[in-house]
Amino acid sequence: MSDASTLRPVRASTIAQWDHQADVVVAGYGIAGVCAAIEAARAGAEVLILERTGGWGGAAAMAGGFIYLGGGTPLQRALGFEDTPENMETFLLAALGPGVDKAKIADYCRGSVEHYNWLVSCGVPFREAFWGEPGWEPPHDEGLMYSGGENAAPFNAIAKPAPRGHVPQFADKKIGRKSGGYMLMKPLAETAESLGVRVEYDLRITRLVVDDDERVVGVLARRYGTEVAIRAERGIVLATGSFAYHQQMIEGYAPRLIGRPAAAIEEHDGIGIRVAQALGADLAHMDATEVAFFGDPQLMARGILVNGRGQRFIAEDTYPGRIGQAALIQQENQAFLVIDEASYEAGLATETATPFFRQPPTWAAETVAELEHDMGLPTLALQATVDCYNLHAGDGIDPLLGKKPEWVRPLRGPLAAFDMRGCTAGFTLGGLRTDLDSRVLHVSGAPIAGLFAAGRCTSGLCAGGYVSGASLGDGSFYGRRAGIAAAKN
Amino acid sequence: MSDASTLRPVRASTIAQWDHQADVVVAGYGIAGVCAAIEAARAGAEVLILERTGGWGGAAAMAGGFIYLGGGTPLQRALGFEDTPENMETFLLAALGPGVDKAKIADYCRGSVEHYNWLVSCGVPFREAFWGEPGWEPPHDEGLMYSGGENAAPFNAIAKPAPRGHVPQFADKKIGRKSGGYMLMKPLAETAESLGVRVEYDLRITRLVVDDDERVVGVLARRYGTEVAIRAERGIVLATGSFAYHQQMIEGYAPRLIGRPAAAIEEHDGIGIRVAQALGADLAHMDATEVAFFGDPQLMARGILVNGRGQRFIAEDTYPGRIGQAALIQQENQAFLVIDEASYEAGLATETATPFFRQPPTWAAETVAELEHDMGLPTLALQATVDCYNLHAGDGIDPLLGKKPEWVRPLRGPLAAFDMRGCTAGFTLGGLRTDLDSRVLHVSGAPIAGLFAAGRCTSGLCAGGYVSGASLGDGSFYGRRAGIAAAKN
Repeated sequence: MSDASTLRPVRASTIAQWDHQADVVVAGYGIAGVCAAIEAARAGAEVLILERTGGWGGAAAMAGGFIYLGGGTPLQRALGFEDTPENMETFLLAALGPGVDKAKIADYCRGSVEHYNWLVSCGVPFREAFWGEPGWEPPHDEGLMYSGGENAAPFNAIAKPAPRGHVPQFADKKIGRKSGGYMLMKPLAETAESLGVRVEYDLRITRLVVDDDERVVGVLARRYGTEVAIRAERGIVLATGSFAYHQQMIEGYAPRLIGRPAAAIEEHDGIGIRVAQALGADLAHMDATEVAFFGDPQLMARGILVNGRGQRFIAEDTYPGRIGQAALIQQENQAFLVIDEASYEAGLATETATPFFRQPPTWAAETVAELEHDMGLPTLALQATVDCYNLHAGDGIDPLLGKKPEWVRPLRGPLAAFDMRGCTAGFTLGGLRTDLDSRVLHVSGAPIAGLFAAGRCTSGLCAGGYVSGASLGDGSFYGRRAGIAAAKN
Repeated sequence: MSDASTLRPVRASTIAQWDHQADVVVAGYGIAGVCAAIEAARAGAEVLILERTGGWGGAAAMAGGFIYLGGGTPLQRALGFEDTPENMETFLLAALGPGVDKAKIADYCRGSVEHYNWLVSCGVPFREAFWGEPGWEPPHDEGLMYSGGENAAPFNAIAKPAPRGHVPQFADKKIGRKSGGYMLMKPLAETAESLGVRVEYDLRITRLVVDDDERVVGVLARRYGTEVAIRAERGIVLATGSFAYHQQMIEGYAPRLIGRPAAAIEEHDGIGIRVAQALGADLAHMDATEVAFFGDPQLMARGILVNGRGQRFIAEDTYPGRIGQAALIQQENQAFLVIDEASYEAGLATETATPFFRQPPTWAAETVAELEHDMGLPTLALQATVDCYNLHAGDGIDPLLGKKPEWVRPLRGPLAAFDMRGCTAGFTLGGLRTDLDSRVLHVSGAPIAGLFAAGRCTSGLCAGGYVSGASLGDGSFYGRRAGIAAAKN
């Protein structure tokens, strides 16, 4: 069935009978939805969650589980890292722009310690251990890691580096090791249910219901082909995730992701964005994308990454999410890792490598000139890059891109190159424009009465950049705000 | 006054009296509006144009005047250039993507010769002369020029190069030399008025008017603080231009343009987009931007352009609009022109240089090593780039980026560098999603009854890329479609 018949808002007067009713209705049982439900219930509202799959979790439960928190969280302090809300704000303004919602970033940084404590009070476990190696995620149950290049160039010269990737996890003999995202969602879902939050599963929302004053008072949904009408006395919270799986939206808004795997779940079809657009909701940063880069960070930090012209483009020891963004957006998805045999062996030997991101070398050669030729690069193109890198690496520095001295060593002897094209995947970061109370804003700038949203169906902290943990971070933070505001409505 | 009270659609039943009435009402008297008006009038409709300034022209009349046309126009053929709609389509798909509206591009290429003939039949003058030098616009009254890098790498290997920048202009002793855009608009405005099209000036639209079936039947506007209601019997055509001057939209959708001059007129405040969004209209490619690059193409082609790391990034002999896009999007707005004294003098000496884009050198030095040092680049960073360039330039080739042999010469002797940062300006290319009949599409995918749009308030041919002439091209082409469809409605 085409969308055409299903997206336009429906008048409440045409609803013969409501199948369900609650004070606050939350669409989507991922991170934003569960946080909205908890806060709405604690504020005294009767809460009903509508979830299109058969269980809680959403994309969050599949995620690595980083939540981006800082400003001096108890975990940061216990592990000896100094941070302030202002320092965190300085970093995020530099890393997530241009065009970020400055009010949202300031608000988020100031509320970050309280948000950490709230998560802990809900039972989210953070183990007091720091993981300091380059990588995507902590390999064990460490609770804290750099997740946005804070300690790498250029950001280490802009703000005092502090790790802010908080990972909820611990080893549990009964359930085995689960992802951080699962360990985040599980205690929150248990908290919500202990507060009497009800859930209807297998219901996918299709249209909003408005009264004669254009106030949102309900939502229509479908369950196995049957239409279900749900009344919301105080407000609806949209928390249905990104549009990574809506092909037309990807082509029209975030075409760099065309043809790449979505680092999301297929329920992320943009429905929350579209039902609100049908009411005149405004959007923001629809082109913004997270881009994962499936290379082993232990190898990347030890080698050099070059583009399709054999030129370096990024400090290789930064967080790999930033490498993917730079490669896809600025280098037309051309990225190759060049590394010498000794560094390759050293990278392989670390217990902290990421073997499932490893691939055999695409080219191997005795000299740079030979490698350059095999890679189809013009004579001197790669050689010039290596000569410049080696000249300074001899002094232990990287003045071109600022890779930290611990990873800088001249490339010598036999070497190899890895074709990293096609190693990117991603998800979308743009969506509904919301205010600090998670009210969905009409294109006129005024809030749409009765409508709230949080998580990846909204534009959150990110514009051009991304740090791991920003999505679970703003999803949980503004999910809470949505629940509070809807309950008060 | 805030937007809040002015954007939401109004019910027709609340309008006590209509101040004006026509079959087809066109908002905006620029290129899209005038073409819509002509075609609607020719189809037998009574047409009223609403223009917020005191005269016709819009951004079009201020523009250089390129219209992107091809597929074998009479002008192309008269000047000895072969082209086909398929060849044009191949180029545009490569140059304007990713994520382009393929149906629109195919449609536009197939209709291009007919559109050229239509413009000529309306009195638009194209002089049979070709200008083949690198530059922004023809320096005299030549009617045809390369305006999108068709004859430069990488596109000259993808499609058979054909110039498609058609510039309406001729020397007129009475009025002196006017911009191509003026020479485009003048005969079209005269044509419209000869067909009885009426115009109301100094009227800025504020809200759409809908009937009880959500069909658009009119528009509200303001004239010096007084509200004016205009009834449209058959349809409204939105042709109000881009959102280059709406600060919040720039920050939220196209943040790369923050802080740059807008290559547009200040009437381009996105109003057409926003009134339609308030009705649930869908958007596309809101991040897409044209980026002008204010450097002298005669100097750029003779030198090398390097980024903030001293690396080359584009074939310097391509159309300068493409250089600006590459510099801003892929090189973080870091661009420097490096040129030796002999080439600089040769560039200056051409009668076809663009002196008003010229600036004094930022740095001058006897050797590359000295220049590199003065520019604050690490030792070998620029030297390596020049060594690689010179090695191949000695053979007359540029295997790294494919600059054409005629512009390739080793850099020798004293040389200079120009800081080209801050030399970019631009405008926005995203907007309302429309179909091939210029019907504005609701987010559900269905057309919004009674609502049509064309020009830069819509997403036209461009996604990630741009060629000069695409905006006047799709604005005029789909303006005509809007007029035809609205008149038939």
